[in-house]
Amino acid sequence: MKLILAIIQDKDSQQLQEKLVKGGFRATQLPSTGGFLKAGNCTFIIGVEEEKVDDVLAIIKKNCHTRSQYVTPTFLMPEAASSLSEPIEVQVGGATCFILPVDKFVRF
Amino acid sequence: MKLILAIIQDKDSQQLQEKLVKGGFRATQLPSTGGFLKAGNCTFIIGVEEEKVDDVLAIIKKNCHTRSQYVTPTFLMPEAASSLSEPIEVQVGGATCFILPVDKFVRF
Amino acid sequence: MKLILAIIQDKDSQQLQEKLVKGGFRATQLPSTGGFLKAGNCTFIIGVEEEKVDDVLAIIKKNCHTRSQYVTPTFLMPEAASSLSEPIEVQVGGATCFILPVDKFVRF
Ligand code: NI
Ligand code: NI
Ligand code: NI
Repeated sequence: MKLILAIIQDKDSQQLQEKLVKGGFRATQLPSTGGFLKAGNCTFIIGVEEEKVDDVLAIIKKNCHTRSQYVTPTFLMPEAASSLSEPIEVQVGGATCFILPVDKFVRF
Repeated sequence: MKLILAIIQDKDSQQLQEKLVKGGFRATQLPSTGGFLKAGNCTFIIGVEEEKVDDVLAIIKKNCHTRSQYVTPTFLMPEAASSLSEPIEVQVGGATCFILPVDKFVRF
Repeated sequence: MKLILAIIQDKDSQQLQEKLVKGGFRATQLPSTGGFLKAGNCTFIIGVEEEKVDDVLAIIKKNCHTRSQYVTPTFLMPEAASSLSEPIEVQVGGATCFILPVDKFVRF
């Protein structure tokens, strides 16, 4: 058993949840924020047998998109607030996944 | 030291929190959603010495109930939306627990 | 790669996020509650190379403060509700950190 912690964009969460259920996987979803953009994201907790980890990662990869987004540089570099003010384009999204070992798994 | 991640129903969270405190355990609670029913649930993070893991699991088992709930099958199987429309009874609740190894624990 | 789960007070979260970004670390923030006071706190998830774990812990220690707070003892000891009613001073805050092993880390 492994625990996958996947941090993804809100926009991809519903589709990912549906595809995981369709693949026979159970996921719990936690609202989260963070990263450079403070954009809304969410964190999936997915418990999975070791031999199915790659299947889950493939589903995540397929359903979590990288997108372009405009941000004001003052957010990224507050110290540059006076000199820069035009929004710039950055890549956001995709998925950040941690695969953690599990000592024991129980359901009641 | 072990980290217990326990996903339980919202309805059981207050009672579980109280019983954990009474048992001398500290728990952090994160709002979450997911599973088949998308019903509100929450995720407890509990740090505990290895020899106390079973005590915590016993408290979780005792305070997290399985319940019957009615859902429309179209949610479970969207592809069957036209043919099925009566709500069906399913079992929800209980607790899903992952016990994770911890390399190091610090408090400041 | 290690995963740091840090539970801190809401009041410290913005400053901690800024200092982590400044140090080149990425953190995801999850709203949480719990502990004795039920005060709002939040849980940071920080993925970090093993040799940088102490750097991150130093940033957390520096930016998460312990504070005095008044609570009514009836919350801490409901059974004493009738005999005690004056608020008492307790120490809250700081940070509780779990450092977890990571089997694998992927970004898409
Ligand atoms: Ni797509
Ligand atoms: Ni009961
Ligand atoms: Ni300070």
